[in-house]
Amino acid sequence: MTQRKHILLGHGSGGKLMHELIEQVFRPLLPSPDGNPLNDAAVFEADGAHLAMTTDSFVVDPIFFPGGDIGELAVNGTVNDLAVSGARPLFMSAAFIIEEGLLLEDLRRIVASMKRACQRGGVALVTGDTKVVNRGKGDKVFINTTGIGSVKRGVEISADKARPGDLVLINGAIGAHGVAIMLAREEIDFDQPIRSDTAPLNSLVHDMLGASLKIHCMRDLTRGGLSSALNEIAAASRIGFRIYEDRIPIQDEVRGACEILGLDPLHVANEGKLVAIVRREDAEKVWESMRANSLGERAAIIGEVVEDHPGRVVMKTQVGGFRVVDMLSGEQLPRIC
Amino acid sequence: MTQRKHILLGHGSGGKLMHELIEQVFRPLLPSPDGNPLNDAAVFEADGAHLAMTTDSFVVDPIFFPGGDIGELAVNGTVNDLAVSGARPLFMSAAFIIEEGLLLEDLRRIVASMKRACQRGGVALVTGDTKVVNRGKGDKVFINTTGIGSVKRGVEISADKARPGDLVLINGAIGAHGVAIMLAREEIDFDQPIRSDTAPLNSLVHDMLGASLKIHCMRDLTRGGLSSALNEIAAASRIGFRIYEDRIPIQDEVRGACEILGLDPLHVANEGKLVAIVRREDAEKVWESMRANSLGERAAIIGEVVEDHPGRVVMKTQVGGFRVVDMLSGEQLPRIC
Repeated sequence: MTQRKHILLGHGSGGKLMHELIEQVFRPLLPSPDGNPLNDAAVFEADGAHLAMTTDSFVVDPIFFPGGDIGELAVNGTVNDLAVSGARPLFMSAAFIIEEGLLLEDLRRIVASMKRACQRGGVALVTGDTKVVNRGKGDKVFINTTGIGSVKRGVEISADKARPGDLVLINGAIGAHGVAIMLAREEIDFDQPIRSDTAPLNSLVHDMLGASLKIHCMRDLTRGGLSSALNEIAAASRIGFRIYEDRIPIQDEVRGACEILGLDPLHVANEGKLVAIVRREDAEKVWESMRANSLGERAAIIGEVVEDHPGRVVMKTQVGGFRVVDMLSGEQLPRIC
Repeated sequence: MTQRKHILLGHGSGGKLMHELIEQVFRPLLPSPDGNPLNDAAVFEADGAHLAMTTDSFVVDPIFFPGGDIGELAVNGTVNDLAVSGARPLFMSAAFIIEEGLLLEDLRRIVASMKRACQRGGVALVTGDTKVVNRGKGDKVFINTTGIGSVKRGVEISADKARPGDLVLINGAIGAHGVAIMLAREEIDFDQPIRSDTAPLNSLVHDMLGASLKIHCMRDLTRGGLSSALNEIAAASRIGFRIYEDRIPIQDEVRGACEILGLDPLHVANEGKLVAIVRREDAEKVWESMRANSLGERAAIIGEVVEDHPGRVVMKTQVGGFRVVDMLSGEQLPRIC
């Protein structure tokens, strides 16, 4: 590990550099420094309640993109972090850092889309904050959302709970959010416009937990994409993953755009996709519960947990070989969320 | 009210422009649009628990200043918003938006001071987030902290509860934080260095609630200073305030610096000061409880709630006249917190 003196863009990537930063700088902040800071939400007891809490700041560029905007993304992102922790989203805060000069009309549009997203995600926005920074010291608007939710008793979802034999489920096609952002940023027009998949996953997770309370791990696939999520679980659970390229859903247009843009779809961010690690005997009923939800119509079982190669994700490719799916090391696409 | 098309620096001031923005843009986001969004924290029931939640983003410039840094400020600010809502701080999130190029050493220093502030404020930092933005699209580091705390049953502190006859208490001398920031920013050296008053107020509020659970309103004096806090309470409670200039504690050096810098100390931000509106019969014991705490040694009763001039704050000046203390309208000092 090299000694770095400055923060690089890659430190925000969701990949290796970010994990280095968390380990070296942020972990000492946590009350139990041996705990796993990589779960999507913290779970604790407060005044007798069993709660989850999660925070995310959104710095996506551009702030409006096909399929959504920074406001919708900010609400869905926090709803999803709660949902994949097994929590029912209840309350949310929203804090805006606005660059001087932002059009009030743009802010109104963002706020309106946050309101719709809160309704859809079943969460009440109860408190907020606004700061304004000088022109050139921010970029239009950054939004932090922090959410709390109640965790159902009996649910214990955590990145360290995957066990050999478990199966890997995904709720649909990967890569649409990242590709939509990149195309919007580069102002590339495709015949088929690719829209972000941003969506609140709370109802999907509710249905999945209805099929089995014993889901071992769950992760929404944001920065770093499917590869980061699986690598994090592999490391935390000390198991290996074997996944099958031909089972991973992906839209043709997204695959085509990734080829043109030189992106690996396994590394591309999503904001309406999750991966679940489920006991083999529960997998089919959980899969069926996903297929019955509109956000899981293309749900698939894409692989399994193995004892071999702990900490590593290995993919059987469509041509029949095997390759290691590594975590992104630098920055593929900054400011994706 | 003029029609504005763009966000101005003054929209982040804590003064009139910010209230306009809240009313016109953010209020529709709240679940009860007729509620008061100006309390420092939202109070609600979650899974049977009686909780408060508050969020703040910190964009202070410079990030290190005499008496503190952005990390300590971010923790204290959220601890204080919970405390003045009558909540015992429990859990906190921290989300960093870092500008590419920040020195890792500076980040480590900030994180270390957050850790100390969490210990002092009795709060556990349980979850976090890191984003990195391109050079020139942020400014070193912005930090959002969001906190939740448990509200003692029987405590009902709210900006709309001031009643004629109540007395106005403050825990010490005003203006040190804002002046310290301004001097640091302008690189002005005074013989007597002025240090920010940043401090966690939870133990002070604990002692005050020990003296009386029936404190009507409480506010920490951040952006917009004492004048914004009192004007907000006056508007929400539909009462007037009469305050006495000669009773408002202020350090000589701060007063001198304000004169030189052209600042009105009533508008200058603090981060370790609060104002409490208390029933007349409780005022002395609350005042004594404050004086017994190291953060209230210079506590004073600075005025009273009156029926006259509802919505207005009137100050009897040292020369014997009266003047209206208005809320700051534009921006006195951007990026103070």
